[in-house]
Amino acid sequence: MPELHLLSPHGFRASGVYAGIKTKESPDVGMLVSDVPCPAAAVFTTNKVFAAPVKVGREHIRGGKLHGIVVNAGNANACTGRQGEKDAREMCFLAGLTIGCEAELFLPCSTGIIGHPLAMEKIERGIAHAGHSLGRDEEHALRFAEAILTTDLKRKVATVRFRVGRETVTLAGVCKGSGMIGPRMAPPQATLLAFLTTDAAVRPPALRKLLAAASNHSFNAVTVDDHTSTNDTAAILASGASGAKIDSAKATASFAAALRDVCQSLAYQIAADGEGATKVVRITVKGAATEAAARAMARAIANSPLVKTAMHGNDPNWGRIVSAAGYAGVPFDPDRCALSLQGAMVFRNGQPVKFDAAGLSAKLKDAEVRVVLDCRSGRNEATCWTCDLSKEYITINAEYHT
Amino acid sequence: MPELHLLSPHGFRASGVYAGIKTKESPDVGMLVSDVPCPAAAVFTTNKVFAAPVKVGREHIRGGKLHGIVVNAGNANACTGRQGEKDAREMCFLAGLTIGCEAELFLPCSTGIIGHPLAMEKIERGIAHAGHSLGRDEEHALRFAEAILTTDLKRKVATVRFRVGRETVTLAGVCKGSGMIGPRMAPPQATLLAFLTTDAAVRPPALRKLLAAASNHSFNAVTVDDHTSTNDTAAILASGASGAKIDSAKATASFAAALRDVCQSLAYQIAADGEGATKVVRITVKGAATEAAARAMARAIANSPLVKTAMHGNDPNWGRIVSAAGYAGVPFDPDRCALSLQGAMVFRNGQPVKFDAAGLSAKLKDAEVRVVLDCRSGRNEATCWTCDLSKEYITINAEYHT
Repeated sequence: MPELHLLSPHGFRASGVYAGIKTKESPDVGMLVSDVPCPAAAVFTTNKVFAAPVKVGREHIRGGKLHGIVVNAGNANACTGRQGEKDAREMCFLAGLTIGCEAELFLPCSTGIIGHPLAMEKIERGIAHAGHSLGRDEEHALRFAEAILTTDLKRKVATVRFRVGRETVTLAGVCKGSGMIGPRMAPPQATLLAFLTTDAAVRPPALRKLLAAASNHSFNAVTVDDHTSTNDTAAILASGASGAKIDSAKATASFAAALRDVCQSLAYQIAADGEGATKVVRITVKGAATEAAARAMARAIANSPLVKTAMHGNDPNWGRIVSAAGYAGVPFDPDRCALSLQGAMVFRNGQPVKFDAAGLSAKLKDAEVRVVLDCRSGRNEATCWTCDLSKEYITINAEYHT
Repeated sequence: MPELHLLSPHGFRASGVYAGIKTKESPDVGMLVSDVPCPAAAVFTTNKVFAAPVKVGREHIRGGKLHGIVVNAGNANACTGRQGEKDAREMCFLAGLTIGCEAELFLPCSTGIIGHPLAMEKIERGIAHAGHSLGRDEEHALRFAEAILTTDLKRKVATVRFRVGRETVTLAGVCKGSGMIGPRMAPPQATLLAFLTTDAAVRPPALRKLLAAASNHSFNAVTVDDHTSTNDTAAILASGASGAKIDSAKATASFAAALRDVCQSLAYQIAADGEGATKVVRITVKGAATEAAARAMARAIANSPLVKTAMHGNDPNWGRIVSAAGYAGVPFDPDRCALSLQGAMVFRNGQPVKFDAAGLSAKLKDAEVRVVLDCRSGRNEATCWTCDLSKEYITINAEYHT
């Protein structure tokens, strides 16, 4: 089987071109379009300071239908006032012109520096170029995936193929995110930039619910710096070109599982490519009284700079982990819990457990560190993904000048 | 006027000795005692994972009276189970023996590594030594101040002298705190280790209220890493030896102002000595609809690693500041607000303001950076203190091995 990519689902074309917005010469304007207007859903940042494209995007998605997505990297078009809003609308207008549809059928997205007006001459030329370079092959998919990156070191792609009755459905996604990654948990909202395509036929209300649920267990569970962005957007377009209808309970369950897998893979890739990251830390809190409590504890652990630096230093300093769970603002009884690192028990029933510190420290050098906190107070669990905190993070963010 | 110190208020003695708990040879066991049992109040961490001395301290402070405080640094006696609780009680018992009082009149405090049993033989010898080295002069005050330090680079002392009617009242405090500094806002609780002495006469219920209020505007408003400790404790002893009674509204107001000043000075010193800090960042949010909203925004800004690294890099990257206010979980309208850095307006009414970037960057090199966000939506304000985030922070915390 050939490798799947963003354009493997039938019915989509994409492009990515360099328009001179990024200082580094790599694609910075991208378009993703469906062959015909199709059901679509999107979730957006909960930040009260949201970028102009988020404002416009919320309007355009209201009808549950899109013809495409137009995106630029290098400038977030956030905190740019009325001009910013006008520019986001103009991006949609121009994208629509290239394929012959109304501006309202485009979702605009931007990512990059906050507080600078878009260089609209460059954007205009970029969109014209992108609109006329659309293609269906893997190279076009990769160029689009590249056009959305900022401080990311790697493209992020995830795909899945599954059957619904006799039909084969393909679901694919790309995303960007490395810094300013701290999505909030509000259910109808999401995070970062993620674009998903599928050739299943799904009606907009169902698509919206499915995307929100999948986001909660993926994008909303990854954190690099807990700084919720002004531009976070995840969107899915369902072309229906496979002929597979997602209308039965069984088909919906298959689709939901596939969507969650793709979104989790993308979220994992964000943690792995977090600014300065040398490893992924996967934190599972189980045995909690509620899922919300499990999530709050996992997130408090994931966001503690003391935990993140200990992980960077391969130090099994479990006191930092237990104490972070203790300030998550939810009930937690350290006298009942059990904490393991890389499968080694380090704390149980309120007492330290003797362990081989040197051996465990060696295991913490792995590319993925697994932290499991069992509260033994219920049946609910939640998982968060984060990365360690290194000097490279400081270099990237203290030397990134406005 | 000679320099004031922790023992300038009449009626107190203190000591600090080296007992071998810290690896570095500097005082690590301290005692602070009043000449007679006296009114006292304390506030403690809200962390669900609280250390044994916090558990015992909560019991001992219940009567509103203490004879002294016994403290060790180098080991937090947290997550140490029943043995830890027994050890904390033993510390009080031994301290009481040295001055001839019940264990229940001592407040025990510990700070240092989590999850290791106290080396009680060393602690016993240390307390015996400390109890027999008590003195009233500045040298003793300084040795006590030193005995509570861990990763701190400097002692932290603040004092004030004021008049209540015809009497002169002295109020003094010392504290420690550099990392694991992220006190929570719950009103009857506090943070870090801070010990205050005064020779005013204040009844316990009033003392408790006054300490809680002062903590909220000082210790609860400083954050280094937002990691709420298992051991945070602030305590005040009021010897009454000056003869000044704090019972009128006027005297209470004077005392409250003095107490807030001393606590704020100590909190400021914690931010300045935060792990890896090169500068203090003072964040004021004003014009907010409620004080809680102002505080939530100030704290979100103070805790953002992106804001802290920008400050480290002398980068006027105000988008990170505005967007942090936007995810604080409280109402915020960027279209009404005004943001200034070191007095220079950078963002107003939802739009960037042109400013001299090189000139402002130079001003960000100062030892204190002032961030003022005016929401122009009310009359409430709050201030938080934090520090920048440097590579030295990573060195300290990734190389501090358990």
